[in-house]
Amino acid sequence: MSVVEIVEVGPRDGFQAVVPIIPTADKIAVCQGLLDAGVTRLEAGAFVSPKAIPQMSDVREVLAAIGAPTGRRISVLAPNAKGGLLALAAGVDEIVFVISVSEAHNRSNVARSTEESFADLAVLLRTAPRAFRLRLNLATCFDCPFEGRVDEDRVCRFVEQALALTPALEFGVCDTTGRAFPDHVRRLMGRLRSQYGSEEVGFAFHGHDTYGLGIANALAAYDAGIRVFDAATGGLGGCPFAPGATGNTATEDLVFTFANMGVRTGIDLNRLLAVADRAVVLPGACVGGHVRALPRHRVVAA
Amino acid sequence: MSVVEIVEVGPRDGFQAVVPIIPTADKIAVCQGLLDAGVTRLEAGAFVSPKAIPQMSDVREVLAAIGAPTGRRISVLAPNAKGGLLALAAGVDEIVFVISVSEAHNRSNVARSTEESFADLAVLLRTAPRAFRLRLNLATCFDCPFEGRVDEDRVCRFVEQALALTPALEFGVCDTTGRAFPDHVRRLMGRLRSQYGSEEVGFAFHGHDTYGLGIANALAAYDAGIRVFDAATGGLGGCPFAPGATGNTATEDLVFTFANMGVRTGIDLNRLLAVADRAVVLPGACVGGHVRALPRHRVVAA
Repeated sequence: MSVVEIVEVGPRDGFQAVVPIIPTADKIAVCQGLLDAGVTRLEAGAFVSPKAIPQMSDVREVLAAIGAPTGRRISVLAPNAKGGLLALAAGVDEIVFVISVSEAHNRSNVARSTEESFADLAVLLRTAPRAFRLRLNLATCFDCPFEGRVDEDRVCRFVEQALALTPALEFGVCDTTGRAFPDHVRRLMGRLRSQYGSEEVGFAFHGHDTYGLGIANALAAYDAGIRVFDAATGGLGGCPFAPGATGNTATEDLVFTFANMGVRTGIDLNRLLAVADRAVVLPGACVGGHVRALPRHRVVAA
Repeated sequence: MSVVEIVEVGPRDGFQAVVPIIPTADKIAVCQGLLDAGVTRLEAGAFVSPKAIPQMSDVREVLAAIGAPTGRRISVLAPNAKGGLLALAAGVDEIVFVISVSEAHNRSNVARSTEESFADLAVLLRTAPRAFRLRLNLATCFDCPFEGRVDEDRVCRFVEQALALTPALEFGVCDTTGRAFPDHVRRLMGRLRSQYGSEEVGFAFHGHDTYGLGIANALAAYDAGIRVFDAATGGLGGCPFAPGATGNTATEDLVFTFANMGVRTGIDLNRLLAVADRAVVLPGACVGGHVRALPRHRVVAA
């Protein structure tokens, strides 16, 4: 039986965009519920400027409450070395660094050029006081809201540039806008895996469901051999700097689909749906997904 | 460049379920708009008992208004020989007969056993006063709301039983509940095509988007070589006799996806969206789909 890892990113990619800011206790309850449902990888928040993204300013409290549950991987996003170092100081063992493949999107997202982002990643790797797992999210790998279709060779150059800095990392190949198409996803993910994949270099697919392609794109990545998928409970999310990009592919849609295809996620759909129910009613939450909205007996009996 | 045929079924599969009944003039306007948008195959209504489904009782007026536009195929659904003969008398050249692979669903849907349905199809073929194109919709080919997962061998036996009656037809392989999964779709559609497909025997995929799998399933069928797809503008639809089944996969989602994958549908997305806008505001319309809800410039610029 095939096995996939789901990286639950709702508490970061979802909650970062919510206005009014979600109370810390609610964030903790959602994170705890996700772990209880069997989520093994959780992107719990971000170390970002509290001025730019006040939604993430309580990340330390959230992390302290979650702790370090056995057999689970807790990560946080950091858009720069400073955030990464703060995360390490807070005891986090896995950092999600982010660089956009599109120059315009990187400037919009992290206010610097891609070269500056790579230089800053080098600083983080050089100055980190201890070892950590690195996930490098390459945003806009398929489509950019400013520059349109993204060249596959350019994505490969970004992968190579990162590999020149560190031999071991996981790439998050991100369809930031939801405008990737399954043939493009299958081709690029297959190329990345065969050209660069190894025991030490992994690739994950991060998709959005804006155009109804979330599941189709995830399965195209699966066909290309990808076994790690980002998703957000309740379809929470969207990138505040990618105009019009709506939520991440819903974790429950992905778990439902994989479960019915005989692919193990390790996540209990019943419990996950209970967490989604809690998440989607949070004031300001921007939600999506399909199976959550259906009569429960029709979903979990599958 | 690859080419697919979209069979627009909204005026039948969509409108049949709408309460209050859609005014005839609105139905005609939607059908006309669809043809103007480039739809080449249109399932325009059904010849069914006006007592059971009063929504279809104006099918003759709709057909008369549409006429027989050059290069387009206009079909109607008939659940029995009586309906088929009435359709032929009304001048229709293509009949969509329907039999469920699940015994329980066939009884629920057309109030008879599958054997009786096949016998009635034989009557239609034997007594038809003239030649006509036959589409045989096999409902519940993957999942049945009453019987659960449907055996693939059973689907094959139904195909063989139909082929024993007539050498030339198109099968509509229907995911009536939306609970088909892409691996199942790819496997079954591939098997049907390779075992039975020929110049005279075609296979189409008819999907629903209930669980967010509409596009993924359509593309799985495409991967298996299928080139004919049913879809409904605005994601209208749902089967009144399959509890909880929501709309057909939205035509505009499918056209958007195929267009961006370099697959020709012949349908103008701009015009199609204008029709969808008109259809979804009809009182009682039960709508779905994704791209229709997005800012228009983000969809058609693709």
